[in-house]
Amino acid sequence: MNFYDKLNRAWSSSQSSLCVGLDPDLTKIPGILKNEAKPLFAFNKAIIDATAEFACAFKPQFAYYAGQNRVDELLLTFEYLRENYPHIVTILDSKRGDIGTTAKMYAREAFEVFGADSVTVNPYMGGDTLAPFTDYTDRGVIVLCRTSNPGSGELQNLETNGIPLYETVAKHAHGSWNQNNNLALVVGATYPDELARVRQLAPELPLLVPGVGAQGGNLAAVLRNGRTANGQGLLINSSRGIIYAGSGNDFADHAHTAAQTLVTQMRALA
Amino acid sequence: MNFYDKLNRAWSSSQSSLCVGLDPDLTKIPGILKNEAKPLFAFNKAIIDATAEFACAFKPQFAYYAGQNRVDELLLTFEYLRENYPHIVTILDSKRGDIGTTAKMYAREAFEVFGADSVTVNPYMGGDTLAPFTDYTDRGVIVLCRTSNPGSGELQNLETNGIPLYETVAKHAHGSWNQNNNLALVVGATYPDELARVRQLAPELPLLVPGVGAQGGNLAAVLRNGRTANGQGLLINSSRGIIYAGSGNDFADHAHTAAQTLVTQMRALA
Repeated sequence: MNFYDKLNRAWSSSQSSLCVGLDPDLTKIPGILKNEAKPLFAFNKAIIDATAEFACAFKPQFAYYAGQNRVDELLLTFEYLRENYPHIVTILDSKRGDIGTTAKMYAREAFEVFGADSVTVNPYMGGDTLAPFTDYTDRGVIVLCRTSNPGSGELQNLETNGIPLYETVAKHAHGSWNQNNNLALVVGATYPDELARVRQLAPELPLLVPGVGAQGGNLAAVLRNGRTANGQGLLINSSRGIIYAGSGNDFADHAHTAAQTLVTQMRALA
Repeated sequence: MNFYDKLNRAWSSSQSSLCVGLDPDLTKIPGILKNEAKPLFAFNKAIIDATAEFACAFKPQFAYYAGQNRVDELLLTFEYLRENYPHIVTILDSKRGDIGTTAKMYAREAFEVFGADSVTVNPYMGGDTLAPFTDYTDRGVIVLCRTSNPGSGELQNLETNGIPLYETVAKHAHGSWNQNNNLALVVGATYPDELARVRQLAPELPLLVPGVGAQGGNLAAVLRNGRTANGQGLLINSSRGIIYAGSGNDFADHAHTAAQTLVTQMRALA
């Protein structure tokens, strides 16, 4: 099954655009888990089980595992998702990018080592560096376009041939880079006007939208500006707003409620 | 000791600009090592010991360890370098880039988990995403500018305010991004004219130059166009040309000779 089909199936079965970000920080997870042999994985399992009914995707952020020297727990997380929730899309958020021979190794990491359905990648090095990822025709490749951080415009909004750089990226992703029909784009919820512009340039591409919740993006604007003509096309990510909704032993119940609340809002706005 | 001081010391003591890239591929390393418990580390150790006398830096490429699910051997490699060759600069080539909170985790990965002297980063997301790295004032942050791959110009050569995007990156790195005085730039040997332009815009910044050897960059042009006024400033990387110079049991001897040959050429051209 190709990536777009898997996404469509996940959207239909969940009736949700919610992507739950799995960014576990050992200093922030509940005390009850800190003595576990695999505390990040134990935390993730509880969050996944508590939120799966509301999620079309899960997105573990590679940096949290690498920065805490716990990449083994990321492997366990992907394995758990694959075995227990095969209908939910997985995204390795690692923003990879390198020359061809090296990019092949990164594609192998994402799709074979972790077995992710999709991976985020950085376009700065050019389309030839994305090909080793898109060559996996049954997986998705999610290209950074207009990111959610405050300084994202510094390069991404520079005018290139009369349009901002991020629009050039959107055009390439809609065009020459998408020969295998498995690209998507990252556009931050914090820039709703740019989100509308990307949706114009790439009417059908799935958009991964981080930045609602802790970063302040507006959900109504994201839905209004980001949906495709058929009312789909969005992976709206929330990480901290869900995984740290509670900090006590009942953290999973709080995560459940936070995910439910967000999805209820999405459905009301649909 | 800050990064520039450490680099200067490494250049002086080695009388060399050679950076040896450690990109071990299990399918390419000599048969004699394939049954080792830690084959990539065993290979690296032999290459490091055989080439250290000619190297100012070692640059392990993260993708090769991640793509082969052997990140533990990358940890061992950094530990080995730190303990045995503390005067040689280490570069984690992982091309990281993410929003602030996440970038902090990547900085922790590079500088605390691996203990690298420096890390390569991608500038697409903007200067605020580089700050968590440059905040480690005793470490180096090496920003992608004009990369060595065939398609690198697709975005990097787009005209932005009358100059190509890569020149804008070079200007920022020479200016507002370098408040902690620990930035360097990546410029491919395959683009000697662009290398000269970057050197003009950033007269003092260290430049990491991949692409001599297997990728076809010209060593004389790199030295002529890339050196600083005092004849230093370059980290000229060779990976495949050295580590796979031989494929039999005497691979380390061949790596030694290949490194020596390249450094002899550099010195003759100096």
